[in-house]
Formats: sequence, C-alpha cells, structure tokens
Amino acid sequence: MGDIARAAELEPVPVPARRRRQLTKAESLRLLGGIPFGRVIFIHMTMPAVRPVNHIIDGGAVIIRTHLGAAVLDAIGMVVSYQADAIDLTDHLGWSVILHGYARAVTDPDTVTRYEQLLHPWVHGEMNHVIRIAPEIVTGFELVKDITVTS
Amino acid sequence: MGDIARAAELEPVPVPARRRRQLTKAESLRLLGGIPFGRVIFIHMTMPAVRPVNHIIDGGAVIIRTHLGAAVLDAIGMVVSYQADAIDLTDHLGWSVILHGYARAVTDPDTVTRYEQLLHPWVHGEMNHVIRIAPEIVTGFELVKDITVTS
Repeated sequence: MGDIARAAELEPVPVPARRRRQLTKAESLRLLGGIPFGRVIFIHMTMPAVRPVNHIIDGGAVIIRTHLGAAVLDAIGMVVSYQADAIDLTDHLGWSVILHGYARAVTDPDTVTRYEQLLHPWVHGEMNHVIRIAPEIVTGFELVKDITVTS
Repeated sequence: MGDIARAAELEPVPVPARRRRQLTKAESLRLLGGIPFGRVIFIHMTMPAVRPVNHIIDGGAVIIRTHLGAAVLDAIGMVVSYQADAIDLTDHLGWSVILHGYARAVTDPDTVTRYEQLLHPWVHGEMNHVIRIAPEIVTGFELVKDITVTS
C-alpha cells in the first residue's frame, strides 16, 4: 500500500451529508420484507421501550415471536412501532423504515404452527408467543447522494 | 465454484440459535461508543416513536443533533431510550445495547459549538439542536455461539 492510501486511511475524507428521499409505503414494506431483523418499540410501564428481534412479513404484517414474561407482551392490544434499517456506517447510504400498528397475539393453532415453521428465533429459549403487527402507518426514507447539477 | 458450494448457497444450512450473554454497563457503553449510529426511542403524543440518528458519546452520555420541529424535541425533559446494535444478519452473532435516561437540551454556546465540530449530521439540513442523554440504566447483550461441552 502506498503512502497516499495510508494517509487516506489515517485521515479519511469526510463523508458528505446525504439527501433524505421519502419512500412510498410499497417501497418501505418491500425493503422491510427483504431483511430478517428489526426493533419493536412500545410503551412499558409509561416508559419508551425497545427490543431487537427477528421477523417475517406475512400479508403485509410484521410477525415476531417472543417468550412468556417478555415486556412486549404487555403491549398487546396497544399501538407499537416497528423499525428496521440498513444504513452503511461508512458511506452513510441506505434506508430506514418505521411502521405503527396494533400488536395482536396470534392464537389460532394452525397459524401459530405455520409461523413457528417459518420464523426461527435467533436466540435460545422457548418462544411460545407469536405477535402480529398490522401496519396502519408506514414511513420510510432512503439516504441518497446529493447530486446537485450546476450547469 | 463447485456444485456442492452452489447447492449450499441455494439451501443454506440453518443457523443454530445463539446464546444471549448479558453485557456489563461498561461493556455496553464501550460498544455503543464504537459505532456512530443508533435509534432514539421516545413517547410522542402518547405513541411509541423511534428515530434513527448518528451520535457521539461524551462523558458517558449520548449526544445527538436534530432540527427545529423534530418530534424528538418534545421529549426533552422526559426519559427516552437509546438503542444501537451490530448483529450480523447472516450468522446471527453480535450485540445490542439499550439505555434509558433523561433527554436534555444542550444550550451552553461553547458546548454546542464543540459538539457541532465533533458531530456531523449524516443528512442535509440545519441541525440546530443538540440533545444529551445521560444514561441512568444501561443494558446490553451479546449473541454468542452456544458451545455445549458434552463429555
């Protein structure tokens, strides 16, 4: 590696600020469905709470699994948020999606069985509750290069 | 690439469930300080809200910048959460850190100037507010391989 490359490593060029482009609901749900992991955001004992979790998207809704005693179970019947992003920490390009909807317990045995086959917890331990978040509001943005044409 | 490697790509081996190892407060803050990006979680008009944002850690507190009119400004004086993670979506290894603390506006001009020099927004637009979240509760976990010794 030459001295110039090494110097560039030591003093990296500042990344220019990105432009925020709003995503449509369809774009947001497509991006969310393309990754397996996000964060459920809810109110727990009057405090803002967040839990990272893996998910699948089924029929436009977010499906997650959790365990008995999990704080998020207290949010069933309430509006929660779900957030996912894929933003490169080096070049600051990527996207973020946030949706809001009621958290509902999935209790139909056939549906639970189907989700248990499709959605494998990333963490050891029994995950005997399935939660469905049907989005009522979906927002998202993409960070894109700000190309200003100066003619 | 041989046929076996290609077949493995088409039918990836399921990733085994990981073990969750609790992190100490010191470990959590060190990991959080090692990445530039997280999510502030707050209550906005009685609803759980989340905004992805870039940060620095100063004196053990999370420092973020935002703009006039941002929803998160309504959370100043309230307890908010801040969450960051670095979990590999392929091998399901990594960590997540969550802290809770009061969001406070930074108003001292010299301190604001110092943070403006240290913390460059990733997104275009004026970011004329600095918020400091001093953690009162810090929790974190690491997802590690579950190596069970069977002797």
